[in-house]
Amino acid sequence: MPRYALMVEYDGRPFAGWQRQADQPSVQGVIEDALARLEPRGHTIAAAGRTDSGVHARGQVAHCDLDKAWEPFRLSEALNHHLKPNPVAIRACARVADDWHARFSAIERRYLFRLLIRRAPLTLEVGQVWRVGHDLDVSAMQEGANHLIGKHDFTTFRSVQCQAQSPVKTLDEVRIEALDNQAGREIRFQLRARSFLHNQVRSIVGTLERVGAGAWSPMDVRTALQARDRAACGPVCPPDGLYLVGVGYPSDPFGGL
Amino acid sequence: MPRYALMVEYDGRPFAGWQRQADQPSVQGVIEDALARLEPRGHTIAAAGRTDSGVHARGQVAHCDLDKAWEPFRLSEALNHHLKPNPVAIRACARVADDWHARFSAIERRYLFRLLIRRAPLTLEVGQVWRVGHDLDVSAMQEGANHLIGKHDFTTFRSVQCQAQSPVKTLDEVRIEALDNQAGREIRFQLRARSFLHNQVRSIVGTLERVGAGAWSPMDVRTALQARDRAACGPVCPPDGLYLVGVGYPSDPFGGL
Repeated sequence: MPRYALMVEYDGRPFAGWQRQADQPSVQGVIEDALARLEPRGHTIAAAGRTDSGVHARGQVAHCDLDKAWEPFRLSEALNHHLKPNPVAIRACARVADDWHARFSAIERRYLFRLLIRRAPLTLEVGQVWRVGHDLDVSAMQEGANHLIGKHDFTTFRSVQCQAQSPVKTLDEVRIEALDNQAGREIRFQLRARSFLHNQVRSIVGTLERVGAGAWSPMDVRTALQARDRAACGPVCPPDGLYLVGVGYPSDPFGGL
Repeated sequence: MPRYALMVEYDGRPFAGWQRQADQPSVQGVIEDALARLEPRGHTIAAAGRTDSGVHARGQVAHCDLDKAWEPFRLSEALNHHLKPNPVAIRACARVADDWHARFSAIERRYLFRLLIRRAPLTLEVGQVWRVGHDLDVSAMQEGANHLIGKHDFTTFRSVQCQAQSPVKTLDEVRIEALDNQAGREIRFQLRARSFLHNQVRSIVGTLERVGAGAWSPMDVRTALQARDRAACGPVCPPDGLYLVGVGYPSDPFGGL
């Protein structure tokens, strides 16, 4: 059976998350349903990141196995046709080796978290950013974030429901930038690691917001990390501003797309 | 009665447009309803730009008259509270002179039109950009647009329903930029004039898209303008990508906000 890698973009709002569920809409579910319109049978796809409810993706990567050999561009067009009107789109499609795996072959995940500083309620960005009503000190947040870079036991920063065998992960990058746009002052947190724990990004961003607001010092982040205790974490921020922006593989299946 | 200027942001999708209508939701209607929660009586507000159905605003300006002297920030907070859950927000509020008028005192309107070049259907930008599936030549579009700069009879580029007394307007600027972002290649059209005719921006952008696609030459825009004939216009583009971004006054009522 030929295997295809799919680069998937979605608005996470209408979904209970990536993972197929019996009674709630999921991104995996609508893509598997679209595949069943092309080849009528049960389909099971795997993805690099099992995003939570309300979390978005620009560059999620999944793979599927089909009976027929599809021309990749035609496959993406056919899937996009059957995905309507769900806010899910196949951005790219490529034939991959039979042993290539969207999740297990991945060597890097990149997340973006968008926070918007403004007093007024959101209109055009509802569900797509986390609105915070007070100013934040970006350099203090970056200083706090720098304590998290490297290989650590991230027990403090993972959900108690996290199913990963080990809490030890290597966080390669947390880059925080501010940009003024028409909606307000946007703070962008860019995080990069081989893999993340459940709720790790939202736990880190929620904690760094406390640093930006002055309630925590940058050094408090280090203390929280070293506590290896979920109770030492700051508040977990909402999913609204979180985007899986890209997944890295030893060789890019989409050829640099 | 003290008069207040309001800077208003909204997502135009759920509304039949700015203007109050008997049987359909409108931006004016929800703001007037919010005002009635503060001072229970009929309210009528005026705005600088009467945007169409589906058109958004970042910096619409309106004014209202109230019985009580409100502290402007408290007024904006109270209005935002009563505007929920509509995607309409008061970004700024200022006391203005009794003869100041959001529409008649305005000396400049600025519009942005966002076009996104990509093959895949939209997900996160649904209703907020115009998706075009083919590449566009930005310099050809700019060359075509330059024929429209200045004082002209814009009969070709206005709706047959336009109620303006004269089709003669002065277009001060049409600036076209391309930027690559995670959603695709975005083309931004920025237009500036003292005032615009009904459907003028969408008629211009729809025509320039034809130039960018190579179906029209830049000179064809000049020929269409000189025809002074609505039938000479290119296709009117959808409202999705259109934003009223700002309104200029001889003196900024919001004090440079």
